[in-house]
Amino acid sequence: MTRKELIAQIRAKRSFLCIGLDTDINRIPKHLLSHDDPIFEFNKQIIDATHDLCVAYKPNLAFYESLGAKGWESLAKTMAYIPKEIFTIADAKRGDIGNTSKMYAKTFFETLDFDAVTVAPYMGIDSVAPFLEFPAKWVILLALTSNKGSQDFQMTQQAEEGIPLYEKVKRKAQEWGSTANLMYVVGATHPEKFAEIRRIAPEHFLLVPGVGAQGGTVEAVTQFGQNEDVGLLINSSRGIIYAGQGEDFATQARKAALNLQTQMAEQLS
Amino acid sequence: MTRKELIAQIRAKRSFLCIGLDTDINRIPKHLLSHDDPIFEFNKQIIDATHDLCVAYKPNLAFYESLGAKGWESLAKTMAYIPKEIFTIADAKRGDIGNTSKMYAKTFFETLDFDAVTVAPYMGIDSVAPFLEFPAKWVILLALTSNKGSQDFQMTQQAEEGIPLYEKVKRKAQEWGSTANLMYVVGATHPEKFAEIRRIAPEHFLLVPGVGAQGGTVEAVTQFGQNEDVGLLINSSRGIIYAGQGEDFATQARKAALNLQTQMAEQLS
Repeated sequence: MTRKELIAQIRAKRSFLCIGLDTDINRIPKHLLSHDDPIFEFNKQIIDATHDLCVAYKPNLAFYESLGAKGWESLAKTMAYIPKEIFTIADAKRGDIGNTSKMYAKTFFETLDFDAVTVAPYMGIDSVAPFLEFPAKWVILLALTSNKGSQDFQMTQQAEEGIPLYEKVKRKAQEWGSTANLMYVVGATHPEKFAEIRRIAPEHFLLVPGVGAQGGTVEAVTQFGQNEDVGLLINSSRGIIYAGQGEDFATQARKAALNLQTQMAEQLS
Repeated sequence: MTRKELIAQIRAKRSFLCIGLDTDINRIPKHLLSHDDPIFEFNKQIIDATHDLCVAYKPNLAFYESLGAKGWESLAKTMAYIPKEIFTIADAKRGDIGNTSKMYAKTFFETLDFDAVTVAPYMGIDSVAPFLEFPAKWVILLALTSNKGSQDFQMTQQAEEGIPLYEKVKRKAQEWGSTANLMYVVGATHPEKFAEIRRIAPEHFLLVPGVGAQGGTVEAVTQFGQNEDVGLLINSSRGIIYAGQGEDFATQARKAALNLQTQMAEQLS
């Protein structure tokens, strides 16, 4: 999906919501377990109930891999089911030497037809570049993540540049990709950093996890992070997909998604 | 596998060779393609031909994922086929927020029964710690990788500590794990760094990629990297498994593995 198409979708839906499909066989409603493929059935009902409220879905690979070959099939079926106009993100956090990253890129962009993959920057240029060679496909590079461990390395000051590592990652990556194929992960748990981040990367889209359970808010993120093209995808996973535990789980998920979408519509400039 | 068992295997085989199973459907000999599961058949013949010369096998996840559910089955069959006394490493370079890392850990350590997983450190403690909670299982943390991109972030000086990032990663990780469940990836393409690395981590095992195609040598790595318990696993992937392209590919792989094992035996103290 191109940047233009993504922005058009955001404007049309008045939403920049990304729904994380962290579908855990141990957490989905029990009545689904009699289905042939409970994971796909759960995703299908979530997608049916929410696709007009969100602009992106983000399956978390760990949850599918944990079920082996069967999980991989549930993922492929989910990808085939998501409407084509919705942006899809493989939350895989891959990154390896060149020929291996190329293999991951082909898997996610060609075989599974995702629009984007999350990539870890630690191994540098040749671990990221192979993902940037596919037209209308995106790298979403980890910059400042939402978890506690983001303090350990991402926040530490670099001697030469006098900036924290996550900023160095952003500066460096801007030599590798453009605003049309590169986004950054910036956690909603660091709202005070958004203004600063916008100085370095005014135009890039940011994928923002950490709203809800982890404590971030749509309002704070949007206030400091929004740019002319909106430039944000705010993710919620557990807060939406596990909003209900009964047979009406999809209705409850819709309510939770609508709540976030309404907050987003109010913030849209 | 415990550290003691690993060391005993190294002493018995006079080898610290790890063979990387980067099994690519486009590179394996053509005559295997008529098999029901060509990837597994290739791995089986490589394992039959080399298991007395190496102490570890390291399947690279990218190559299996690229074939979807079918590749995941080939991986599971390969894991079931590797003799139990051989150390197994999932070269997956995972790392995510706590609950996701936990899911990855269960997949690799429980479902697939690997002894170790390679983990990327960028997201810090809670992305690594869940992998350290499994008895007799190992984290192999990326420190200084063998690729060109290792210059981009790993080598850059940290303001507070006055050391490069990869050293900070090692120091920090030593607070999280022990010499019995934590190793580091250090590329053979940086032989001059091994003496320095041994000052910070005298006892830890190091997984060393980059011998062969990428230019590192067994001699240089061993000279600077060996400790009292050997403390090294040197990996070769393409140089062994693709040594031959014909029907005798397994014999050629054995020759290449024997060549490395002989060099290792000479270096053992």
